[in-house]
Amino acid sequence: MSQHFEAAPGLHPSKDPATQGFVFNQTMLRIKDPEITLDFYTRVLGMTLVRKLDFPEMHFTLFFLASLEEQDLANWSQDAAERTVQTFSRPAMLELTWNWGTESDEQCQYHNGNEEPKGFGHIGFAVPDLDAACARFTELGVAFVKRPEDGKMNDIAFIRDPDGYWIEIFEPARLPKGLESHLG
Amino acid sequence: MSQHFEAAPGLHPSKDPATQGFVFNQTMLRIKDPEITLDFYTRVLGMTLVRKLDFPEMHFTLFFLASLEEQDLANWSQDAAERTVQTFSRPAMLELTWNWGTESDEQCQYHNGNEEPKGFGHIGFAVPDLDAACARFTELGVAFVKRPEDGKMNDIAFIRDPDGYWIEIFEPARLPKGLESHLG
Repeated sequence: MSQHFEAAPGLHPSKDPATQGFVFNQTMLRIKDPEITLDFYTRVLGMTLVRKLDFPEMHFTLFFLASLEEQDLANWSQDAAERTVQTFSRPAMLELTWNWGTESDEQCQYHNGNEEPKGFGHIGFAVPDLDAACARFTELGVAFVKRPEDGKMNDIAFIRDPDGYWIEIFEPARLPKGLESHLG
Repeated sequence: MSQHFEAAPGLHPSKDPATQGFVFNQTMLRIKDPEITLDFYTRVLGMTLVRKLDFPEMHFTLFFLASLEEQDLANWSQDAAERTVQTFSRPAMLELTWNWGTESDEQCQYHNGNEEPKGFGHIGFAVPDLDAACARFTELGVAFVKRPEDGKMNDIAFIRDPDGYWIEIFEPARLPKGLESHLG
């Protein structure tokens, strides 16, 4: 039986047992100023900082954030070493890399991948209510790349984080209908 | 009580109730040739294609992949619309965007974010056994950016996907000890 739910060229039909236990754990973005960016991801998007790793010899710090609900917090260890294992084990960690000094370096500006040269596009968050989320982002002064009413796809929005990375915002239940008219 | 496990400047102390139910769902990368890239993510990393969305008017296709074990497959709906909702609801989806025609466009080459201009760094996978995973990648002819034995951090590896994006590979249980000597 195929492990896939769609047909497409190139698909390997069955899961190699050697890949059992592989977990898509993290996405890493470089950030200029942690004070500004941590405020954004924890206040605007409600994420939790679960682990911070300082590498003084190499002059950088890694911040690992997760979307957690209050009842999830008790699942995380208070012990730093155990929390390192948890951080690298679970799906959907956002890893932010701060190279010390970039926050005061006027030349430092990271590339969001959506102008040339293109590559990485965005990260994306599901929200329970797209209209409420966008109204709140507007109140909080968050920069929009695209509001739901802009363009063709009216059930998705894109906001910008402090470094200019794009963040897609959508309400999953609205998407089948929202995408329907565009699909082949 | 703080929602965070570490101290850092900028952290918002408590989770705004308006962010309840926000889920870090996806990371999007542009790809040149789906046949080559789907082979890589499904054969080498064992991922499952759960949803494919074709947008013929706009000449692009989105592929959504997840790291799933065999017992997870039964949790996914066979109904396409329901599977769209599932795809956009769960954590840790890899979204690959194929703009039609790039596979035969010699000029098309995506930027991995690790040369100038820098930005996005990598995605990362946890594996149960780093040495076994790297031996298998070598057998399969996967390109390495860094083998575990290269450089200072001997408990992590970086491989390249077909577009040149970096993928970090690590065994969570080895990391507390592996990182210890470098931490501040």
